[in-house]
Amino acid sequence: MFGYFGPAGTFAHQALLTFYDGEAIPFVTVSRALNAVRSGEVEAALVPLENSVEGGVSVTLDNLATGKRLMIRREVILDVQFDLCVRPGTQLGDVRQVLTHSHAAAQTRDWLAANVPQAVVNEGGSTAGAAKEVSDPGSKYDAAVCASVAGDLYGLDHIAKNIADNPGAVTRFVLVSLPAQPPMPTGADRTTLAVYLKQDQPGALLEMLTQFSVRGVNLCRIESRPTKAGLGSYFFSIDAEGHIRDPRLAEAVLGLKRVMGDVVFLGSYPRADRVAPSVAPGFTDASFAAAKSWYGSVINPED
Amino acid sequence: MFGYFGPAGTFAHQALLTFYDGEAIPFVTVSRALNAVRSGEVEAALVPLENSVEGGVSVTLDNLATGKRLMIRREVILDVQFDLCVRPGTQLGDVRQVLTHSHAAAQTRDWLAANVPQAVVNEGGSTAGAAKEVSDPGSKYDAAVCASVAGDLYGLDHIAKNIADNPGAVTRFVLVSLPAQPPMPTGADRTTLAVYLKQDQPGALLEMLTQFSVRGVNLCRIESRPTKAGLGSYFFSIDAEGHIRDPRLAEAVLGLKRVMGDVVFLGSYPRADRVAPSVAPGFTDASFAAAKSWYGSVINPED
Amino acid sequence: MFGYFGPAGTFAHQALLTFYDGEAIPFVTVSRALNAVRSGEVEAALVPLENSVEGGVSVTLDNLATGKRLMIRREVILDVQFDLCVRPGTQLGDVRQVLTHSHAAAQTRDWLAANVPQAVVNEGGSTAGAAKEVSDPGSKYDAAVCASVAGDLYGLDHIAKNIADNPGAVTRFVLVSLPAQPPMPTGADRTTLAVYLKQDQPGALLEMLTQFSVRGVNLCRIESRPTKAGLGSYFFSIDAEGHIRDPRLAEAVLGLKRVMGDVVFLGSYPRADRVAPSVAPGFTDASFAAAKSWYGSVINPED
Amino acid sequence: MFGYFGPAGTFAHQALLTFYDGEAIPFVTVSRALNAVRSGEVEAALVPLENSVEGGVSVTLDNLATGKRLMIRREVILDVQFDLCVRPGTQLGDVRQVLTHSHAAAQTRDWLAANVPQAVVNEGGSTAGAAKEVSDPGSKYDAAVCASVAGDLYGLDHIAKNIADNPGAVTRFVLVSLPAQPPMPTGADRTTLAVYLKQDQPGALLEMLTQFSVRGVNLCRIESRPTKAGLGSYFFSIDAEGHIRDPRLAEAVLGLKRVMGDVVFLGSYPRADRVAPSVAPGFTDASFAAAKSWYGSVINPED
Repeated sequence: MFGYFGPAGTFAHQALLTFYDGEAIPFVTVSRALNAVRSGEVEAALVPLENSVEGGVSVTLDNLATGKRLMIRREVILDVQFDLCVRPGTQLGDVRQVLTHSHAAAQTRDWLAANVPQAVVNEGGSTAGAAKEVSDPGSKYDAAVCASVAGDLYGLDHIAKNIADNPGAVTRFVLVSLPAQPPMPTGADRTTLAVYLKQDQPGALLEMLTQFSVRGVNLCRIESRPTKAGLGSYFFSIDAEGHIRDPRLAEAVLGLKRVMGDVVFLGSYPRADRVAPSVAPGFTDASFAAAKSWYGSVINPED
Repeated sequence: MFGYFGPAGTFAHQALLTFYDGEAIPFVTVSRALNAVRSGEVEAALVPLENSVEGGVSVTLDNLATGKRLMIRREVILDVQFDLCVRPGTQLGDVRQVLTHSHAAAQTRDWLAANVPQAVVNEGGSTAGAAKEVSDPGSKYDAAVCASVAGDLYGLDHIAKNIADNPGAVTRFVLVSLPAQPPMPTGADRTTLAVYLKQDQPGALLEMLTQFSVRGVNLCRIESRPTKAGLGSYFFSIDAEGHIRDPRLAEAVLGLKRVMGDVVFLGSYPRADRVAPSVAPGFTDASFAAAKSWYGSVINPED
Repeated sequence: MFGYFGPAGTFAHQALLTFYDGEAIPFVTVSRALNAVRSGEVEAALVPLENSVEGGVSVTLDNLATGKRLMIRREVILDVQFDLCVRPGTQLGDVRQVLTHSHAAAQTRDWLAANVPQAVVNEGGSTAGAAKEVSDPGSKYDAAVCASVAGDLYGLDHIAKNIADNPGAVTRFVLVSLPAQPPMPTGADRTTLAVYLKQDQPGALLEMLTQFSVRGVNLCRIESRPTKAGLGSYFFSIDAEGHIRDPRLAEAVLGLKRVMGDVVFLGSYPRADRVAPSVAPGFTDASFAAAKSWYGSVINPED
Repeated sequence: MFGYFGPAGTFAHQALLTFYDGEAIPFVTVSRALNAVRSGEVEAALVPLENSVEGGVSVTLDNLATGKRLMIRREVILDVQFDLCVRPGTQLGDVRQVLTHSHAAAQTRDWLAANVPQAVVNEGGSTAGAAKEVSDPGSKYDAAVCASVAGDLYGLDHIAKNIADNPGAVTRFVLVSLPAQPPMPTGADRTTLAVYLKQDQPGALLEMLTQFSVRGVNLCRIESRPTKAGLGSYFFSIDAEGHIRDPRLAEAVLGLKRVMGDVVFLGSYPRADRVAPSVAPGFTDASFAAAKSWYGSVINPED
């Protein structure tokens, strides 16, 4: 059984349905979803990690870095899109009262003004709740602006799809389980780490980045998060290109482990976008193998 | 006239009162406060920049980096503390119903259980609102958990002060005005920048940090923020030790301006904690002056 | 009056004649030539600095770095080539006895075997001395392998020119005077420095190179030389692309002066090969000027 | 049978005798000594590698880096010292004619002037030759300034020992054999490498040094040598602290092999001075082992 950051009908729910059709439980906070994994109540949970507009999801980053160890198994990148959903039979021209959440209202304002100019837009507690309300035949609302999944969940018709004014926003969700062997490398993987500096020393961040660059490992994301020990004390949440079993990344992670304060390994897993890293000459698996073979020949030249 | 992130009785309000006793207007969002500066409605506004527990305040970082240029003039670091405030005459043993905000309730739970075990804790919309409610003689609530300023504002008695279970959390606020000459260096200054990488190229962050380190400039804070152009596109919000008129910091900022995508200067101003940077040999003002004098002697040796 | 590393008829003499036809005095050692500049006996002296086969000329590097300050004014790069020179009237088939120096014999062995197979090759003290000897009508030697200038000096015929077996070797000579204003930048200049590390500390060489790279300055030559204080104590003799008046190089040299043990400026002068440096974006004079202008605008925004 | 850079009675001979009393053959050049190893004529040869006053011995550095592969097995560091040697019976006051080599004369000038003011100092071809000449009862010379070994070799009395004016100069000699397994690590080892940059690209030297520094490996010696392909084309002759079997050095050498043009491993061998490297935290063998163990636990957490 899987958990997700709910309620039912949210984007996390929609993201989960892209790869899972078993039983699923919504949790009202990210922390509760992750703790349900820790306690064994669910096998894994899907939670948001970052958003292209808002940045990292602090509660997820902090919980994974500081709580009892968990591991990311896969990721889903979902377009943040909205549909206009109605009770079956309602036409666009009939829509008088729209219900949605304030964020969704803000992101579809222009479309609504242009396409249902006659409608009043009301802001409620959640987009999923709006869909549920609209599904009630006695509701005073004609339409909900909500995630596609919420429309389906409550038996509504999608009279307009993908109505966000600025399309392109995405949220990245991660499926988190108890620690286990990472899935095997696919050639297009991502590795998530939390790295603590040894102390708040000048140059420690530069040293951390050098550990990656000297092994030809590129970073996709780096965010500082307070350790809560006071202003100026940080850890870094990082996504690196590649898999911990790739020799360049293995060497970088081992280097970090030796010279940084602490390294928390949070998983290596396939990238949802299937983008393989561009690995510079000298950093490919073949380069590592060739160098290792050469090393053997110089320390045992008689062989 | 100054603005602040309100309503009246918040920590921002309390922070403003530490240095300003003129007329002040609360704004309900950080964006509105900053736009009031841009429009000239207020001369300056006090807004939160970072918190030792929650990290950077995204809305402030993003608004300053991307909106019409503003400049930080000073900072205030405020302990996030709560008082238990009552109508005059109420004793600790009389408190039966406490009103506060859910965050404040969470941060004072142990103290309340130990000191007013008989009381029920109710969660309302804001700590300032709780104080206002309690000030009403007909209220069913006996006490509010709120910022000190809110107790004063509504004429309450502080029957217990600084009751947070885990003291030490602080919030850093900044006073923002239209661009102007930075205040003169004091020897213990901070400089805030937003730096955009030239493109999403491997090594660009390392190069950025090297611009600082090679001039002996330490960073107090660095945070990545999405540029909203898609996952993986970031700018960096940075606080550096020192003043833009310090030669080491001037050279670093000039170096960034030349090699990075863009640099937004957001102000040099005295540190609230008055901590002077420890400047390594070779990076003091005297070192810069001595090197410059030597340079003159080698290009004009006959002088 | 100019001096050069002699005797008359050497490559240094030949290099001097490429740009100077006034009175010139040969000195038997590099040190004597440079000390004659220091004492005012000559206005300037031409000495070898590096050779494409043998590397840096240690005595020149050490004398310039450690003796009373001098300055390089110009450079000459000379092909190390040999001619076969005879008394007027001698034909190639008549050559029975060849005189030259052992180095020159080694570098022309194949040509001599192929073209004057009947001749015995004798090794004497210098190629210039060989030419002088051959010019004596009573000499038992028919031909000298020597620098072109030596053949001319002693009135010999060049019956074969450029006979080195492996052409392409060059020597770089420098004209050294007392310290003076460097010649103005030409856009294709070289700067020579001697840099002493602060102490024999790990990472100091890396730090030195970073001072150049962070300002986009490329190095043409870097050599370690012992300070004579014991194994493991070095200074670095460096040629950098560009002129000390170029802003990127000025900033690099100032940076070295501040953080290294000592910097000896030995001159900025036009490159003999007229190769202009490829300056990366962000390091051109225009980039420096633009950044400076921006800096003025942020510290004086009202202007 | 061992070879050495001769003739008999030189410092190389003296250095060889510090650890070897078998049969030994002198060779007149370093190249001939090394080629005798390559051809199997001798098992190993002792040649000078660097001198604290003159720097690296170019012919040795170049021959090892570019010729058929050889390997350094051990090193000897020898004080460059001179004795005044006479035929048995001669007293200091009797010395009228001293014979030596010009370098030795220069380095003992003050001592000779103070202690045998009546003597004329004559410069001959070598200090060993001077000792041989003085050993002839019919010689017109009374005394030789020579290496201690030469006095012994020719049956002379050492009437004064260690007469160099500036004591402290040392030469480091290396014993070179055909490639073989390096001797086991002793905890105070040195590793010699020749590293070719991939092309003459800006930043390649910085990248090379970073390969060492990021693994906490310090360098004892670094020298650039021309590749003979023209001005500006170099390889680097390097001595690093530690043994190629030390994990930090192994990783550094493997890194160089991958990203540099070529790496020639010239041996790991005990330091003559027995100085153990100061290894920073994070770079000890124990740190490497701990990180490797951690790595195993994160990729196989169920174990």
